[in-house]
Amino acid sequence: MSKLRVHGFGVSLDGYGAGPMQSLDNLMGVGGMALHEWAFPTRTIRRMFFEMGLGGDPDGGTTGIDDAFLVRGFDGIGAWIMGRNMFGPPRGPWPNVPPDQAWKGCWGPNPPFHTSVYVLTHHRREPLPMEGGTTFHFVTGGIREAYDLAMEAAGGKDVRLGGGVNAIRQYLAARLVDEMHMAIGPSLLGTGEHLLGGLDLPTLGYEVAEHVPSPSATHVVLRRRD
Amino acid sequence: MSKLRVHGFGVSLDGYGAGPMQSLDNLMGVGGMALHEWAFPTRTIRRMFFEMGLGGDPDGGTTGIDDAFLVRGFDGIGAWIMGRNMFGPPRGPWPNVPPDQAWKGCWGPNPPFHTSVYVLTHHRREPLPMEGGTTFHFVTGGIREAYDLAMEAAGGKDVRLGGGVNAIRQYLAARLVDEMHMAIGPSLLGTGEHLLGGLDLPTLGYEVAEHVPSPSATHVVLRRRD
Repeated sequence: MSKLRVHGFGVSLDGYGAGPMQSLDNLMGVGGMALHEWAFPTRTIRRMFFEMGLGGDPDGGTTGIDDAFLVRGFDGIGAWIMGRNMFGPPRGPWPNVPPDQAWKGCWGPNPPFHTSVYVLTHHRREPLPMEGGTTFHFVTGGIREAYDLAMEAAGGKDVRLGGGVNAIRQYLAARLVDEMHMAIGPSLLGTGEHLLGGLDLPTLGYEVAEHVPSPSATHVVLRRRD
Repeated sequence: MSKLRVHGFGVSLDGYGAGPMQSLDNLMGVGGMALHEWAFPTRTIRRMFFEMGLGGDPDGGTTGIDDAFLVRGFDGIGAWIMGRNMFGPPRGPWPNVPPDQAWKGCWGPNPPFHTSVYVLTHHRREPLPMEGGTTFHFVTGGIREAYDLAMEAAGGKDVRLGGGVNAIRQYLAARLVDEMHMAIGPSLLGTGEHLLGGLDLPTLGYEVAEHVPSPSATHVVLRRRD
């Protein structure tokens, strides 16, 4: 049975999964980059940045606990789901997207997914094939439709739910997430998008399956009981 | 300058500092004991239980990271402040307190404070001297009155704010907490009293001063900037 999995989701000590006022200048919201400090030094993220054309040494980076959790997030994944804001922050109908109408999201010409990616949105748009095997599909029928399409596209592999906070909260509330890895780092946001507020995870069937601290973050894997 | 310090406050992964429905049978609320799993094996807690007449080996218990953080919580403390519910769960005027009107809280005849303890309450009560140097004083004038009384009683030492969640939230919002150690353990509560929800700690002047993971919990010390 294929699973819906969340990996490498950074959370602040006060529970925020993104900062406020997300924009093209602050892709993760104001202060949101601090949520990912634990991940930037890892080999997996260095390689991802290199592949995306951002430079750096693809063989550099750390290979300890933090990296091992990130590696797992790319293992056995046949399709992705993400919220519109993770595709890129501009809101509203596509023709209004800045900086131009051909804007193809914030992941560069060769996005690091290399599968079909189902983007949750209220606004129809034709599929967008990119370099490297990634094709963005825009789903207007809600989280269940995206789930079904991604599971079919995954062909027996698992589906990774990339984020952001709102998408993860919807899938958790619907009990569709099978496994969620989050990394709680030493940051305080004070405002932004709260990941778990108001979600009663034990009642929804979730329990703590793994708890592995590293110097940079506390890695937690939640799993849904069958 | 004397400080107001919080120590050893257990928090779940989803941010709860106590379970719901606190009662004499569930002193920390339903499921709330899970917040303190990291602390029970330590020498400090073993000794505290022994002193309280609960038995066990006072020289047993672990002496690693978890214990070191608990030890700090008793160093240089000249007085305590706690909420009414931490004194004991029964609510309402004192004459109605079960199981009898002479009820002296849930800390036993020899409480582990050995100082004056200022209990926040809406209901007047005469001071209550106990064995071992602890005297409970009942403060009806609010958090600032308790702060001033405790600081005076501490005689130049620091004041420890024991809890519970509501008391800590009030003192944080008033920017009166100087330092707060919390231990985030591998538990999910889903419901109960949320420690930081709605408090914008960076705006209130707090920052992460220490972040020390142990296998049992992630220890975090927040400090208020001067």
